[in-house]
Amino acid sequence: MSAQLERLIQALQLQPGVGPRAATRIAYYLLDQRREEAKQLGQVLCEAMDKIKLCQCCRNYSDEERCEICKNPKRFESGQLCVVESPSDVAAIEQSNHYFGRYFVLHGHLSPIDGVGAAELGLQQLDQIFATGTIKELILATNPTIEGDATATFIANLAAKYKIPEVTKIASGVPLGGAVDTIDPKTLISSLMNRRPLSASGSVV
Amino acid sequence: MSAQLERLIQALQLQPGVGPRAATRIAYYLLDQRREEAKQLGQVLCEAMDKIKLCQCCRNYSDEERCEICKNPKRFESGQLCVVESPSDVAAIEQSNHYFGRYFVLHGHLSPIDGVGAAELGLQQLDQIFATGTIKELILATNPTIEGDATATFIANLAAKYKIPEVTKIASGVPLGGAVDTIDPKTLISSLMNRRPLSASGSVV
Repeated sequence: MSAQLERLIQALQLQPGVGPRAATRIAYYLLDQRREEAKQLGQVLCEAMDKIKLCQCCRNYSDEERCEICKNPKRFESGQLCVVESPSDVAAIEQSNHYFGRYFVLHGHLSPIDGVGAAELGLQQLDQIFATGTIKELILATNPTIEGDATATFIANLAAKYKIPEVTKIASGVPLGGAVDTIDPKTLISSLMNRRPLSASGSVV
Repeated sequence: MSAQLERLIQALQLQPGVGPRAATRIAYYLLDQRREEAKQLGQVLCEAMDKIKLCQCCRNYSDEERCEICKNPKRFESGQLCVVESPSDVAAIEQSNHYFGRYFVLHGHLSPIDGVGAAELGLQQLDQIFATGTIKELILATNPTIEGDATATFIANLAAKYKIPEVTKIASGVPLGGAVDTIDPKTLISSLMNRRPLSASGSVV
């Protein structure tokens, strides 16, 4: 087989979910039918990896020093700050279209065994944001895992110094549309312990 | 969202089997963890699309004027020529490690409705190979589809002029390890019509 083709099939497997068979299929498809577009994909890849940086304000991916969200003054009005583990969490929350405050992206969670501490998560920068005294509500939206919860607790302690009026954590429980009898026991326990009064109209108070 | 990131997610969807969700996952993964390798993938893509050409002899993908197979004189000794629809067919047959002759790649099948005729499949070049009088067996390994079969018949007619000693077509039938009761009726009919005598030792004659 052509050495270039072999190299291409190998390189394509860098992508998660793309194994040797899929990579081979992709390589032949691109060569057979989409050479020009594939070259463009190559250029876009190089450019994106070179140019996408972290917003100096929230550490989300951004083309400029400050991301679109941090450039928008309306995002600062509510005084809400939502802390998430990864940029894809920001994208998910933005898509839900129910939160209009600002964000802070940790790019991971505390994990001493992997050498991820406060510095790697930009917690000093977060501390500086707390110090401005502009945050009225700190929303911790880390993943409901052992590491995510530990990270949320650590940040809540950090926030305690600055007397932030409200520190909340997003709810975990049975996902909407899910079935109680198929959910794992730990989620079910959390869901029971965090039960909330239900009004006569059927809405949760 | 960053415009560059959006462009990247869009571009990644060029790949077959990669939809918006997978593309998003791939983009974040590469940005988060594999920037350098992703840039290399981009460069390999551009280079491969630019530099991989068709072997002048067999039309398979090649880095040079002649591919590795056509440069190997041993491949010409048997006088066998195997005609396939696509370069991935060559890779599959090579992997089976049971054929040691040369190839000719059509890059498709006859399909007048799509404007694919003899010229697009390089049949003039194939004709010239027949004219050399070096082919002792022509093996037609096009796909067992209506178009593939029609293409095989067309090439067999082309070969008839040159009195090639043997013209064969690869067998189709129940795949090894397959089950007779799950195979489609057309394959089963073909398999019955092409039945072969079985010797007492159990091997097909």
